[in-house]
Amino acid sequence: MTEPLRLGIAGLGTVGAGVVKIIRQKAALLEARSGRPISISAVSARNRVKDRGVPLDSYAWEDDPVALAKRDDVDVFVELIGGSDGPAKAATEAALRAGKDVVTANKALLAHHGQALAEAAEKAGAVLRFEAAVAGGIPVVKALTEGLAGNDITRVMGVMNGTCNYILTRMESAGLTYDQAFAEADGLGYLEADPNLDVGGIDAGHKLSLLAAIAFGTQVAFDAVELEGIGRISIEDIRQAADMGYKVKLLGVCQMTGRGLEQRMSPCLVPATSPLGQLEGGTNMVVIEGDQVGQVVLRGPGAGEGPTASAVLGDVIDIARGTRVSTFGQPAASLELAKPAQTATPAPYYLRLILLDKPGALAKVAAALGEAGVSINRMRQRSHDQNTAPVLIVTHKTTRAALDNALAAMVGTKVVEGEPVALRIEQV
Amino acid sequence: MTEPLRLGIAGLGTVGAGVVKIIRQKAALLEARSGRPISISAVSARNRVKDRGVPLDSYAWEDDPVALAKRDDVDVFVELIGGSDGPAKAATEAALRAGKDVVTANKALLAHHGQALAEAAEKAGAVLRFEAAVAGGIPVVKALTEGLAGNDITRVMGVMNGTCNYILTRMESAGLTYDQAFAEADGLGYLEADPNLDVGGIDAGHKLSLLAAIAFGTQVAFDAVELEGIGRISIEDIRQAADMGYKVKLLGVCQMTGRGLEQRMSPCLVPATSPLGQLEGGTNMVVIEGDQVGQVVLRGPGAGEGPTASAVLGDVIDIARGTRVSTFGQPAASLELAKPAQTATPAPYYLRLILLDKPGALAKVAAALGEAGVSINRMRQRSHDQNTAPVLIVTHKTTRAALDNALAAMVGTKVVEGEPVALRIEQV
Repeated sequence: MTEPLRLGIAGLGTVGAGVVKIIRQKAALLEARSGRPISISAVSARNRVKDRGVPLDSYAWEDDPVALAKRDDVDVFVELIGGSDGPAKAATEAALRAGKDVVTANKALLAHHGQALAEAAEKAGAVLRFEAAVAGGIPVVKALTEGLAGNDITRVMGVMNGTCNYILTRMESAGLTYDQAFAEADGLGYLEADPNLDVGGIDAGHKLSLLAAIAFGTQVAFDAVELEGIGRISIEDIRQAADMGYKVKLLGVCQMTGRGLEQRMSPCLVPATSPLGQLEGGTNMVVIEGDQVGQVVLRGPGAGEGPTASAVLGDVIDIARGTRVSTFGQPAASLELAKPAQTATPAPYYLRLILLDKPGALAKVAAALGEAGVSINRMRQRSHDQNTAPVLIVTHKTTRAALDNALAAMVGTKVVEGEPVALRIEQV
Repeated sequence: MTEPLRLGIAGLGTVGAGVVKIIRQKAALLEARSGRPISISAVSARNRVKDRGVPLDSYAWEDDPVALAKRDDVDVFVELIGGSDGPAKAATEAALRAGKDVVTANKALLAHHGQALAEAAEKAGAVLRFEAAVAGGIPVVKALTEGLAGNDITRVMGVMNGTCNYILTRMESAGLTYDQAFAEADGLGYLEADPNLDVGGIDAGHKLSLLAAIAFGTQVAFDAVELEGIGRISIEDIRQAADMGYKVKLLGVCQMTGRGLEQRMSPCLVPATSPLGQLEGGTNMVVIEGDQVGQVVLRGPGAGEGPTASAVLGDVIDIARGTRVSTFGQPAASLELAKPAQTATPAPYYLRLILLDKPGALAKVAAALGEAGVSINRMRQRSHDQNTAPVLIVTHKTTRAALDNALAAMVGTKVVEGEPVALRIEQV
């Protein structure tokens, strides 16, 4: 095993260039830890002439990542192109068909094609690893797939989109509106080209679907993730939540219940004193609950050159050491088709609604809840001078279905302006 | 690889019995994840007739763990006996000599004999894994050895003795004296037979020395860990720390500096709002800092049947999957003898001393600090009616050597009663 492990790196953005830099700068360290040298045979990107702050002359160049993936002098194809389809998918498939191991940071690719790619990897006797695709530098895929493999996993939760957490934290700490905090994040370059990937919860939903597959031995089912973005969260919600001892987080939760697999990525209230509640800014956190271990919390940087490159290198070193673990922790053929839960585990909910100033309005709202079987834990109507009054309600534990019935009935009474905001209070 | 992986388990206390239970109850899950069945061939313990809540009849019994370790029908020797020498060491050595892989939860054994055992394992082509020896259920050995292997590790910190953290938390939250909190922990069965292993920092020091070896590629050097227990911490210290925005934790820190390897396990002040400061009760936390990843924080249960068994099973599943990683992350022969740093990285310190009520006493204390080159950031003398006055000082960043000179000079002035308390304020 003293032959070098030879990489082909496709995609030379921030992360790709970072991986090249580390391999150049830490050759001795990587060799000591891997038991063999790690070298780069060839690289590929769209633009050959761009200066990436690292010399690339000593590596072969391929314009076409598919050609890179198939090169005889490449043992491991490192996919840092991004995107669920197109060249990333074509090159990953080509690499696996050619029996190459693959390391990728591409959550979208795996969320949409994880099962097919895992099957292709196994058919070819190759491994497909994706630590960098989930929660950046936090070695959470490894913790779940390997370190905690002796557990029946009961629930996995995570704040896995740093941009959303940054926006929510700034709204709270600086009193910014959602639009102001969004603009600030945009100015700092934190948002994806399509911002809905971030604030719509899609990016974080991709990550959640990968963790769910490992946790529960199921085929990746991104389409079954209930997605709700943070666009409707107001300062008012954040302040009221704080007042009651909660923080608002874009929280992913997956759990297996008698009703099937629940996967949700939505703004939730979590206790301010919990590790999730204390998480600020762009940091990510994943909480894993197992029947033996109890609760394990992992926290770290969710994005950026160094953290993502660290995760890529972790996978590369595993391969150099000869570690061969199934993509989702067990053979792809043994992964079950998850039955999506039709209704989420009951929880208390936070409701904010605007009441029109009509006689009996509050009574109608209370009746709508009561008739749907939703009981009220706390209610507060704020003083007001206009024709509308903000009302805040915290329910006792209820099903989302009952709550939705109540909300529909409320809107039907015509004493409520617009759509009420309903946020789950997650028991963490 | 569909042959079962056959275990021999030595030591059937809480953890050993827990491992047996999981292997019996989760056979299908473990086989799916491992790619092969995991079975138990034989077990060993001191008392054969004791009821351990799990049937053992189907396993061969060995009175002698050394005999168990050498059995032909054992692939992996699981050492859960404990103790740095005696039967645990003899049986582990016998297993490795016989070419068996070893999984152990024994921090004392590895802290004292880690280098020799790692060499023995490599000589025999065996692996020696010890996830359960450090921070219970938190997969921190794996995170450091594998997931973060692409980093130059700059510092590792940890609260790794749940009993000490329980005592300190109870002193703070319930206003108990050290002796009261100690008695409470003892009543709950939290203390080792020799309590100094806990409150003297020895147990946590063992764990720190193992993480340092992995982090810095050095031979385990437990004897070089600066150890200081929590026995001198008073409620007064905890209250004053809280008043200044700090918490008192028994904190392990290791870092490689130009002066050599620092390894300290001592009560420190950490910011109350940091993840370490927010840690309460028996939970453990390890903070890993790498040049690429930045800061990764892992938190979870540090002891107990389920968490420790979870860690043991993680190692067993790795072996079943064919994962072969060097004991400390690189070949034992390549681990360097660490030069211990003669002096710790400078830091601010918290001092508490009892001043005798003599004219000029405070001036003498201030002079002792100034002459040693230690400058004062904050000082507070409390009102008093007796003949002595408590004085609290927070210094600017200083070396421990300068501080010790100052403390010696202070005591020499005879205006200070007893020994001052000096606690490092760790920058986390």
